[in-house]
Amino acid sequence: MKIKDLRIHSIAIADPPLRSSYGLHSPYALRTILELESEDGVIGINETYGGEGPAQALEAIKSRIIGADPYRLTGILSPMLQGKEGGLERSQTFLVPGENPLDVATRTYAAIEVACLDLIGKSVGVPVCDLIGGRVRDEVPFSAYPFYKHAGGGGEGDDIREDEYGKALTPEALVRQVKQMIDTYGFGSVKFKGGVLDPEIEVETVKQMYKEFGPDVPLRIDPNSAWTVDTSVWVGKELAKELSGGGYLEDPTAGLEGMSQVRKRLLAEGIDVPLASNVATTSFNHLPESIRLDSVQIILCDHHYWGGMRQVQHLAKLAHTFGIGLSMHSNSHLGVSLMGMAHVAAATPHLTYACDTHYPWQSAQDEIVDGGRVEIKNGCVRIPNKPGLGVSLDYDQLERGKERYLKVPYRKRDDEAEMQKHVDPNWKRVLPRW
Amino acid sequence: MKIKDLRIHSIAIADPPLRSSYGLHSPYALRTILELESEDGVIGINETYGGEGPAQALEAIKSRIIGADPYRLTGILSPMLQGKEGGLERSQTFLVPGENPLDVATRTYAAIEVACLDLIGKSVGVPVCDLIGGRVRDEVPFSAYPFYKHAGGGGEGDDIREDEYGKALTPEALVRQVKQMIDTYGFGSVKFKGGVLDPEIEVETVKQMYKEFGPDVPLRIDPNSAWTVDTSVWVGKELAKELSGGGYLEDPTAGLEGMSQVRKRLLAEGIDVPLASNVATTSFNHLPESIRLDSVQIILCDHHYWGGMRQVQHLAKLAHTFGIGLSMHSNSHLGVSLMGMAHVAAATPHLTYACDTHYPWQSAQDEIVDGGRVEIKNGCVRIPNKPGLGVSLDYDQLERGKERYLKVPYRKRDDEAEMQKHVDPNWKRVLPRW
Repeated sequence: MKIKDLRIHSIAIADPPLRSSYGLHSPYALRTILELESEDGVIGINETYGGEGPAQALEAIKSRIIGADPYRLTGILSPMLQGKEGGLERSQTFLVPGENPLDVATRTYAAIEVACLDLIGKSVGVPVCDLIGGRVRDEVPFSAYPFYKHAGGGGEGDDIREDEYGKALTPEALVRQVKQMIDTYGFGSVKFKGGVLDPEIEVETVKQMYKEFGPDVPLRIDPNSAWTVDTSVWVGKELAKELSGGGYLEDPTAGLEGMSQVRKRLLAEGIDVPLASNVATTSFNHLPESIRLDSVQIILCDHHYWGGMRQVQHLAKLAHTFGIGLSMHSNSHLGVSLMGMAHVAAATPHLTYACDTHYPWQSAQDEIVDGGRVEIKNGCVRIPNKPGLGVSLDYDQLERGKERYLKVPYRKRDDEAEMQKHVDPNWKRVLPRW
Repeated sequence: MKIKDLRIHSIAIADPPLRSSYGLHSPYALRTILELESEDGVIGINETYGGEGPAQALEAIKSRIIGADPYRLTGILSPMLQGKEGGLERSQTFLVPGENPLDVATRTYAAIEVACLDLIGKSVGVPVCDLIGGRVRDEVPFSAYPFYKHAGGGGEGDDIREDEYGKALTPEALVRQVKQMIDTYGFGSVKFKGGVLDPEIEVETVKQMYKEFGPDVPLRIDPNSAWTVDTSVWVGKELAKELSGGGYLEDPTAGLEGMSQVRKRLLAEGIDVPLASNVATTSFNHLPESIRLDSVQIILCDHHYWGGMRQVQHLAKLAHTFGIGLSMHSNSHLGVSLMGMAHVAAATPHLTYACDTHYPWQSAQDEIVDGGRVEIKNGCVRIPNKPGLGVSLDYDQLERGKERYLKVPYRKRDDEAEMQKHVDPNWKRVLPRW
């Protein structure tokens, strides 16, 4: 089997005005959709980070892809995964996922790997999870992912989406948002994006969620490094009960050293709330130091930037070996990415937490998966009885996404610029803020 | 695709009277050959440890295998890989590979995994190395594997093999043995099995090899834990020149703590001869301690006991992450195992040393691969342009191997008993001996 063509489609999809310590989501998130077509006309697809950078990185290796055997291409391109460049600086502490020049190689590799796996799966009639080692679960649990947000459902001008969840900048509004998400999707756990309001308000928000949903719904809070070590320890103490029993404190402070201090100080006070990270520990290079310092007790994998599905499986085995938990990170995404996340999670025994997903924040109007949005039921995505990723493209919808991309001014994610435009012209990302 | 049948064949193959710190190889090595047949008549094969134990462990899970989809079976059986049982005791320091009850689950899983991969590869026309991530090399380098040995080529009674290499219990005889192996197979490196004679003689043996073959042929010595820490350090100092430049000192002493001491003391004297292990570090459970103590700078993988090809790939990524080298261990084996070793090595970017193989010690008369012995040329096995492992069975030869198994009294590997029978009735394995 040989690859005849690689088609790279840049699309824009409406995204609500969600807040994080990085700033504000712009009215559109950018994604790249790949099609890998074999000589016999089978098409493997994938979805990855969007905008100019990711598309250019894919264009740059196109000549190595055309004519290659999809079974072998991942071996041929594997030097892209071996780099040690960047060392400990190579993290998402200061740069949003998808905009870090130091992991462009692993992101580009991952985009091609998954498209190859979908192409192979569709060629031989086998789901991707079974190609990469065999599923250990048919249903993959995801978490509700509440955000502080401004009013609006995403899009701009005459292209705006319904504001399904409304404005939410108070504890009460966040509880309502989670309730709505759980009612719609049946999520059994909550990953709450903090780092936006005063930590006292965020702590109160978690407490109100705990009061509403009880100890059977694990809670996580993730301020994306917005806090000092002192504030992180204070939050850990305040939320010792609320974050225990399957919850965690994600990236409270910046850097492996700071995370390590938070962990040590909490343990010294008898508080065993685990720390998770997708910001301090984002590549294999970070792991020796992260483990040595006990900075992170739970790693968030994400095949989009860790180098693909097999790298996530390597990471999972490494985490299991060192007694580290594994969860999964998400970015704004459509159904192809969601299915990729579900397949790799299905084939990863040591996935110890429900995965993150932004999927509830996207709308059916933007979905490019044939047949419409992927179903999340009882909080889970079910692996369909279909080959490859189990989804294919709706080409009309893809065309609309491409037209939207050409119309909008956004070519990379810049949450700081959006904050300055819509909320506060003087806003700067400051770490730590509190 | 469904599995219709699993056939388990116990065979015996002639093995020369090779010596190690475990004792003496018996006149026959035992192997198990698996056939996994799909409903449409495709047959996946594999080779693993032999004798009663391994065959019984496979028989015990047969009912879980019949009717399963080979793409999914590895997922279904994956709990066999998750065990933490045995902890640090679970090593081959005291038990020969294949006879350790604590890794029976990973050995059994591995045997099935590779047979599934061969079945899948033969079904879809793809080599195994390309199924598991794609080859990074077409030729896999192996090392010459000289042993001190008594006269004889293996077998007993009226079933004896030509003694191709002759008796070798002196430095000069070992140099001749290596020369003969290099002439026949073109090996570019030497892994020398020590732990048999006085360390002064073994050091002299390595020095003579270095003198004969020069600095371009990396040398390793492996006494299987026969030495004290003091002796190990003395050997490291004596052979600082001979073992540098791509060589290593393998398992000089028992246990992670002892290995760590050897490493520290050698470094303190400015000697950076790396330590390798397939005895102290033999499962993922050992890695945290092994890394913390810097006991082992090179790990010997082996899909037969590490849990299969994908586990070896996980191990390789973990080793790369922690700056640890990767080599490959071998047991007495035929061509199916050799091809399994070659395929996983071909698909493992971070394989930093030529692999071990006992293959030169086996004879064509015992080979069960259709077409006869697998070629080793210029020290390498070339991945053939054929699906699966690239080999299938010669059923007449398999039948002879099974008949041989029924005739011989051996049902497990017991090198101590062989020493007592043939060399010294009072011989006991003692660690450390020197």
